[in-house]
Amino acid sequence: MIYLDNAATSFPKPENVYTSMEKCIKTYCANPGRGSHSMSVQSSLEVNNTREKLASLLKTNDSLNICFTKNATEALNMAILGCLKEGDHVITTCMEHNSVLRPLKTLEKYNGIKLTIVEGDGVGRIDPFIIKRHINKKTRLIACTLSSNVNGIIMPVREISKIAESKGILFLLDASQGLGSIDIDLGRIYTSMLAFPGHKGLLGPQGTGGLYVSSGVRLNPLMSGGTGSKSEYLLQPDIMPDRFESGTLNTPGIVGLGAGVEFVLKTGLSEIKRKKDTLIKRLNDGLSQNRSIKLYNPQDVNENSGIVAFNVKDTDSSEICALLDKRYSIECRSGLHCAPLAHKHFNTNKTGMIRLSVGYFNTMDEIDNTILAINRIIYDVANKY
Amino acid sequence: MIYLDNAATSFPKPENVYTSMEKCIKTYCANPGRGSHSMSVQSSLEVNNTREKLASLLKTNDSLNICFTKNATEALNMAILGCLKEGDHVITTCMEHNSVLRPLKTLEKYNGIKLTIVEGDGVGRIDPFIIKRHINKKTRLIACTLSSNVNGIIMPVREISKIAESKGILFLLDASQGLGSIDIDLGRIYTSMLAFPGHKGLLGPQGTGGLYVSSGVRLNPLMSGGTGSKSEYLLQPDIMPDRFESGTLNTPGIVGLGAGVEFVLKTGLSEIKRKKDTLIKRLNDGLSQNRSIKLYNPQDVNENSGIVAFNVKDTDSSEICALLDKRYSIECRSGLHCAPLAHKHFNTNKTGMIRLSVGYFNTMDEIDNTILAINRIIYDVANKY
Repeated sequence: MIYLDNAATSFPKPENVYTSMEKCIKTYCANPGRGSHSMSVQSSLEVNNTREKLASLLKTNDSLNICFTKNATEALNMAILGCLKEGDHVITTCMEHNSVLRPLKTLEKYNGIKLTIVEGDGVGRIDPFIIKRHINKKTRLIACTLSSNVNGIIMPVREISKIAESKGILFLLDASQGLGSIDIDLGRIYTSMLAFPGHKGLLGPQGTGGLYVSSGVRLNPLMSGGTGSKSEYLLQPDIMPDRFESGTLNTPGIVGLGAGVEFVLKTGLSEIKRKKDTLIKRLNDGLSQNRSIKLYNPQDVNENSGIVAFNVKDTDSSEICALLDKRYSIECRSGLHCAPLAHKHFNTNKTGMIRLSVGYFNTMDEIDNTILAINRIIYDVANKY
Repeated sequence: MIYLDNAATSFPKPENVYTSMEKCIKTYCANPGRGSHSMSVQSSLEVNNTREKLASLLKTNDSLNICFTKNATEALNMAILGCLKEGDHVITTCMEHNSVLRPLKTLEKYNGIKLTIVEGDGVGRIDPFIIKRHINKKTRLIACTLSSNVNGIIMPVREISKIAESKGILFLLDASQGLGSIDIDLGRIYTSMLAFPGHKGLLGPQGTGGLYVSSGVRLNPLMSGGTGSKSEYLLQPDIMPDRFESGTLNTPGIVGLGAGVEFVLKTGLSEIKRKKDTLIKRLNDGLSQNRSIKLYNPQDVNENSGIVAFNVKDTDSSEICALLDKRYSIECRSGLHCAPLAHKHFNTNKTGMIRLSVGYFNTMDEIDNTILAINRIIYDVANKY
């Protein structure tokens, strides 16, 4: 089996993710932050350990500003629904995932916000100055993905964040694609909120994610409930991170995420990027030899978070993906990837795209075999099998 | 180590919870509901397998009406925030957890709902007729816990649900305490929404829970985002369970929950209840011999979901718990248990309570040793160590 769906969720995980989760759930997993017995205390310590590692990855001293969520979608909803009110104007891009677009479109439809969605260029690259041009007095938030989950294009988020900073506008960074190989230094890049999944580039398990909320940014929580703190209060307490962490946390998941982040930190972002770049270059160069293939990803690996996206003439993307799976056990993704406006942008909203997304654990052999398999399938499809 | 904090989270889990999660995360864990490759398909199948098992446990044919959440708190917020609007009146009880009280109090403060909180009797037992008396034309929701997380009292939820049904009022059952040993038959008890954690009586891992939403009950989703379905829609699709399952699900967690539910189904609710009843009776009878102890839990095991709650004269509950942990490695919980109104009801909001909560895997020996340990500590505290 060749797994090339790392943009959906990374597989496999570093060995220590498995072993640390097993140790947690089998030996000490009590309710963190509730009660003072030793298992509960150890659970709390391990949860905060992961928080510290994430703070170290993001280069912030404010680890308590990182709140754990079940996935990036929850984090993005917390950010978007938590900071906007009627009359606010928001700027976002056509390359966003539905986890950004749907909350914004919901607020636009039912809660009176105004929304501007800026278009990208041929590979979906956003021009920061187009964003700047759309800013008005009501602009409260700019929301932008770190890189596209459709074709991997890395966005000029530093430039966009500078514009937001200079205008006193909140900047929400959706780091779902790219965190774990792209360096994000919260000390150097103005970020009001940063949402991330735990199970993609950070190599942790599903059921994890988080939201970093910069000090001074005031959000209404998405939900309220037991926090283990100020239990006598009948309203949500105003303590970070408790304010955004109602209910029992996913301790084994968070412990596994900690092991994933540790692997990333030890391996080094640059080494992970170098490895992914090499794989993507080989894959891209290999496929670009085939004249039936139309590639949608940026050709420069420095602009690509790890995706090769393509179509084969007019063939539906799902047909190619199904053959890759059935014949060669190559696991990749067809369809719209929950990013309908990006597909509209590329005029692929009917056919979808075939998305191959690499991870640190893929090998060059896997890439070469994938190229061979795709060429063989294209030949067979052209010749009606 | 003797673990008596099962009301916070159950420990240990059945062996198959560990092995099924390990198999999932190591061999097939892709993104369920996204893509059609074989790992993704297997992940989807396993997620739906757990859904079927939960439907079987709850005796409903509508497994697609069960949505997965990260914990019961998310499920309760989905239910409460999703069904109420300005002007609605809600009835709940003093025995609720902050996961019910805080969302309701937030809506009362900021969104113009009216809230009636009914008091219980000496053990917190709610009289359904008091609830009935408070119903008015604006009453939209009755929210009640299946049993108290403070003292284990099982509520007359069947009678309360009948009142709600007869008046056409939504009934939200918080099954956080008791599901997995108390029989809930959705075919026979009127339930508009039922919220549950996966990691307590269902013996699954943390990071899991769910909300059952009866057909015909219309809820606004708490969040929106990628669902893997109708990706071309820029608003949340209206399909169950996708409408309430935005973002990547916790596949390994849900698989583990399935194994937990399977254990419960195979063992049988009545056998689990019998075992817990035996443990609780011994613990209750043992502690009631000591004149320094004041018990707060119902004495009849048929009214108790598995908790013995007590105080030692005026001693702060945390002091006793700390000694139980340090000297005897007995893990239990002091404080307010995120249920401030219940403690106010018992006049224990200053001292808290010591809560011993049993699970299916506790043994009679552990109970006997706990009674001995508590008696010894009480003696030592009385004699200043």
